[in-house]
Amino acid sequence: MIGLVTLAVSMMSTPELSWTEAAPGVWRAQIGKKDSPTLLEAAGAEPALDRMSSPAKRALPFDLDAVRGGLAAGRAFASVPLGKTEKIFGFGLQFQGSVRRGRVFHLKVDHYDDGQDETHAPVPLYVSEEGYAVLFNSPRHLAVYPGLGNRLDEPSNPPIRDRNTDPKWQAQPFSGMVEASATAPGMEILIFEGPTPMEAIERYNLYSGGGTLPPKWSLGFWHRTPTNATAEAIEAETTEFEERGYPLDVIGLEPGWQSKAYPGTFDWSDRLYPDPSGFVKKMTEKGLHVNLWENPYFSPQSSIYEEMKPHFATHMVWMGAVPDLLHKGASEKVMAHHARTHLDIGVSGYKIDEVDGYDQWLWPDHAMFPSGIGGEQMRQIYGSVWQRELDGMFRSRNQRTLGLVRASNAGAAKLPFAIYSDHYDHGEFIAAQISTGLAGVLWCAEIRSASNSEEWVRRMQSACLSHIAQLNAWSSGTKPWSFPEVEDEVRTAMMQRISLFPYLYTSFAKYWRDGTPPIYPMALVDGGTETDQYMLGQDLLVAPIITGTKKRNVRLPKGLWYDYYSGDRFEGGSTIEVEPPLDQIPIYVRSGSVIPTIEPALHLKDALDDPLLILRRYGTGPAQADLYDDDGETFDYEKGEGAWIDLSVVGETVTQTVEAGAWESIYKRIKLLKVGAG
Amino acid sequence: MIGLVTLAVSMMSTPELSWTEAAPGVWRAQIGKKDSPTLLEAAGAEPALDRMSSPAKRALPFDLDAVRGGLAAGRAFASVPLGKTEKIFGFGLQFQGSVRRGRVFHLKVDHYDDGQDETHAPVPLYVSEEGYAVLFNSPRHLAVYPGLGNRLDEPSNPPIRDRNTDPKWQAQPFSGMVEASATAPGMEILIFEGPTPMEAIERYNLYSGGGTLPPKWSLGFWHRTPTNATAEAIEAETTEFEERGYPLDVIGLEPGWQSKAYPGTFDWSDRLYPDPSGFVKKMTEKGLHVNLWENPYFSPQSSIYEEMKPHFATHMVWMGAVPDLLHKGASEKVMAHHARTHLDIGVSGYKIDEVDGYDQWLWPDHAMFPSGIGGEQMRQIYGSVWQRELDGMFRSRNQRTLGLVRASNAGAAKLPFAIYSDHYDHGEFIAAQISTGLAGVLWCAEIRSASNSEEWVRRMQSACLSHIAQLNAWSSGTKPWSFPEVEDEVRTAMMQRISLFPYLYTSFAKYWRDGTPPIYPMALVDGGTETDQYMLGQDLLVAPIITGTKKRNVRLPKGLWYDYYSGDRFEGGSTIEVEPPLDQIPIYVRSGSVIPTIEPALHLKDALDDPLLILRRYGTGPAQADLYDDDGETFDYEKGEGAWIDLSVVGETVTQTVEAGAWESIYKRIKLLKVGAG
Repeated sequence: MIGLVTLAVSMMSTPELSWTEAAPGVWRAQIGKKDSPTLLEAAGAEPALDRMSSPAKRALPFDLDAVRGGLAAGRAFASVPLGKTEKIFGFGLQFQGSVRRGRVFHLKVDHYDDGQDETHAPVPLYVSEEGYAVLFNSPRHLAVYPGLGNRLDEPSNPPIRDRNTDPKWQAQPFSGMVEASATAPGMEILIFEGPTPMEAIERYNLYSGGGTLPPKWSLGFWHRTPTNATAEAIEAETTEFEERGYPLDVIGLEPGWQSKAYPGTFDWSDRLYPDPSGFVKKMTEKGLHVNLWENPYFSPQSSIYEEMKPHFATHMVWMGAVPDLLHKGASEKVMAHHARTHLDIGVSGYKIDEVDGYDQWLWPDHAMFPSGIGGEQMRQIYGSVWQRELDGMFRSRNQRTLGLVRASNAGAAKLPFAIYSDHYDHGEFIAAQISTGLAGVLWCAEIRSASNSEEWVRRMQSACLSHIAQLNAWSSGTKPWSFPEVEDEVRTAMMQRISLFPYLYTSFAKYWRDGTPPIYPMALVDGGTETDQYMLGQDLLVAPIITGTKKRNVRLPKGLWYDYYSGDRFEGGSTIEVEPPLDQIPIYVRSGSVIPTIEPALHLKDALDDPLLILRRYGTGPAQADLYDDDGETFDYEKGEGAWIDLSVVGETVTQTVEAGAWESIYKRIKLLKVGAG
Repeated sequence: MIGLVTLAVSMMSTPELSWTEAAPGVWRAQIGKKDSPTLLEAAGAEPALDRMSSPAKRALPFDLDAVRGGLAAGRAFASVPLGKTEKIFGFGLQFQGSVRRGRVFHLKVDHYDDGQDETHAPVPLYVSEEGYAVLFNSPRHLAVYPGLGNRLDEPSNPPIRDRNTDPKWQAQPFSGMVEASATAPGMEILIFEGPTPMEAIERYNLYSGGGTLPPKWSLGFWHRTPTNATAEAIEAETTEFEERGYPLDVIGLEPGWQSKAYPGTFDWSDRLYPDPSGFVKKMTEKGLHVNLWENPYFSPQSSIYEEMKPHFATHMVWMGAVPDLLHKGASEKVMAHHARTHLDIGVSGYKIDEVDGYDQWLWPDHAMFPSGIGGEQMRQIYGSVWQRELDGMFRSRNQRTLGLVRASNAGAAKLPFAIYSDHYDHGEFIAAQISTGLAGVLWCAEIRSASNSEEWVRRMQSACLSHIAQLNAWSSGTKPWSFPEVEDEVRTAMMQRISLFPYLYTSFAKYWRDGTPPIYPMALVDGGTETDQYMLGQDLLVAPIITGTKKRNVRLPKGLWYDYYSGDRFEGGSTIEVEPPLDQIPIYVRSGSVIPTIEPALHLKDALDDPLLILRRYGTGPAQADLYDDDGETFDYEKGEGAWIDLSVVGETVTQTVEAGAWESIYKRIKLLKVGAG
């Protein structure tokens, strides 16, 4: 009987959906039954209604009634109109570009390996050059058919041609829809209006709660120490950073900090860290923050294993019991243990490892979790749920954090974690970083090792313009100075990161306030499809030199642009060839902007102590910068405890206007630095 | 409520299954509800009970009660015990070997591209070196976890180790089970006893109905003509084969034979074939058989489109309407049209194209078919169903056929189709061919083109020892003589194929009678894992020279072996290096066997007209050959109208004994040919 009912529904023309405006410019429809938790629910996303407003111009390129959906073949499906040549971008963290037509996607949380189906954050969101975005808010392995596949009854189908005789015959005939489906009782679909592609993405990020505003310290330099390093060894390592003059703000402890690892205990190792509290205190006194690696699967040796027993899934990971944080009482126990043994002694954040894949390392699809969720669904949301619960713990202490995670998904914009990966192709690392701007996630383009000094410095430069700048030496033991012939160039890249702090922090504040991604692709500027150049904030265009190349092309969008270092001027709407010296990563400054920087120091804490704000000025016309400041540590900014300052430059004069907020900024001293001849 | 019920079932320890002996040595259990049609049902598989007997020794290495299964997370799952070092092989047509531990498989019908999840026949069957085979008879995308994944409550789990300190820590700890699951209401699981791995596979093939026995003509040489060739052009081409002295038995017509293609009409093209009946008749008179390409999706221009309308799926393929042959009345209409317009004028078989993938060319998973089957399931069985229905049409005329198909699955042993693929890596072609012996399918290792003459002859040699020997020139227009410097070597390879007819035909007859695959891997001989050498029948070991190499190693199993050409003797249980001349593909003859051959001719029909049976004899000891014969065209052999002859050779004396059957064989004249010194 079930088969017959399904058939009756499916063989009809697909039913219309019922739409509601879930937030200004956000349209929501439910296909079938609610499939809980959705991706947004798993991430704890709640619309930032206080920061959202209706679109300036309300026009989707299609009628909402033209979007169809229903249940068929045990699956929930949706069908969204698509124009004949309409470009769409998206589907999450992607290492090979984000242009999305011509192939089917089976979105699944996994280690990125090769291809575009399996990735650390396969966010089922796409944005159209026509100025809207679509989220299939399904916590399942979603199959997406972007402009592929023709329904028999679809009026937009092209004419049928004979391959034998018609030279216009096409192997992939046009299809006027994006279809998506998953084995599920239903699916939520959300459409975000623009009217521009950037505004559609901003609306998506705000609907997720607005982007995360990380603590100030987290925008400095991070270094992860060898897996079995002792407390003493780490102290010595941090001292060497100082002595050699390399900046350092976060020190990451790897598996050895736990009494057992793979599976782990979440308890300190007596052997390597006899006095955890004293160790963290020493680090804090040095101006350093401590980040702890965790593989979130329990060893029976964990001090809370027994109390966690009711909350484990049917299957293990790395011989560890898998906690279901959605099961009643589970998260409270885990977070209480974290708060008591880590946060209370000063730990600042976490790196959540191995929540992505591969298949042979995670639970099977038929694993069951005590909350009633199955393995396939839990895999899509496990990383999000861990982020959400850790974020909640920090929030409850009014303490910001920024951490690392291996898996994420839709709705994660407000979660203070950057994704990282074992994959190490330099070009693909940069492509992934760029794609984050289409997915509401952050990225840590780590450096780890290099086969020569040129590679080391080029990787360091691009990593230092990532969301998190981190040397991940847990296995390699590499140091910034490991290639002596480029120790100065490497230091320069790290110091440049520190000097850009005011600009970076303001860019993150815009992520929170406006939903504007701190890093985004040219797709959101002018529909560009480049995977090797991107916007860092709204005023800097970065074009990294990929390891092994000396020069490259850079496409500058329309308008005037300036070389960040020399101030040389370029007319946009053109492609230029650049061959920068080894100590420079090509950066271009948008005309009309000034770039707020500071003098770097070895710890951000020191650099931000009565800093001199250096406004890098390009050209001679009127220019402007936004500048944001707050306490940098708490969530008081959400209650208005922050300052938005407008810095207007006309000639040699800088005018500061506090535009919003009641916070007294740290920037008391300002210097205008004219770069180049203009 | 549904979630809670699922949970209750799943979190219990997995329930035991109820087993019945479905056929001698075949154990069957049903998990959850029946998921119809199963793979075996879709293929029309029915146990050949008349040819099955109980195992000589009844011992599985585990108790059936140790096999578990149930429903969890909306999925049906099974869990089968696996020994700590037990080797298993299988999962269908595979291009990269068939050893199956260490990774998860997501079995899906698709073009093979790269990897091992998606292939033309992802048969969910594995065979163990311990002498049994397991079939997960599920028509779904099956996820299989062979020795991967540990249940929390599994007693066979290894001890938990600390990665920080224990050098014995393993990234993939031992798991004592093969788990499999699919999103489905249930799953049938079948276990085939051995006691040897070969006997387990034979039992599987017999449970599928026994292997197909193709018509005699189909073991000759096949040639496919350019897509838009006219009837005249094809006649001229066949004449050129004769004039140049190359054998030819089957001529394949490509899309141009239809009045429209991609999508097709299934109707003859008036333009290229003004007199189809006359054309086929001419071919038949030449001793040739005609095979028709079909892409089984309907153009509205088809003469039966209107009557087929009730039977089409929601989605199209190549802009063609997709018929559901499982929908009441659909197959009758399609087959009546085929019989009337093709078979009645002498067409001998079909090549069913494009039933495998890729995703962008088939229907989406949420497509619905009028019989009530969804897109995911239909994709797994669509190729099988077309084979079954075409086979049924031929059977109803008591006429054998052999054809080509792009997709197959479990239960296909008795279906008269060989799989082919666009993939063209020579080594992977051979690996795929070898893997058929573990999957109950046939393979056509086509030749198509080559970049040089050496490649052309090496590919031709291996293709001529495939199930179907075919030059697929629909696009390339290549001819056997296209590389003049190797025209003799190529002819030699083709003629060798013809001369081996009695041996090959007998090997197929054993496939039907005993379930013994006509080509099988060393895994079924002695557990070998080679992907570049195989058994052709039970007496010949073939070790093709891969394009680009001049010599290779060959591992000879224990016992004596003889070089097929020189008669040189080798002691087995060793690896030898060979560097054959360009006109030889290395073949080794098992000691104790004689190889029945004939003198080749340009058409098998002529070669089989009062043939001289040449028994190739190696060494001096007593030797033996089985020889099978029947009418070669009808299914009367199923009623005993065939002869099984034992040919025993002692010294110079051959003794013929008719072991079974009432057929008078064509082999009236016998010659003993001593090869080499022995």
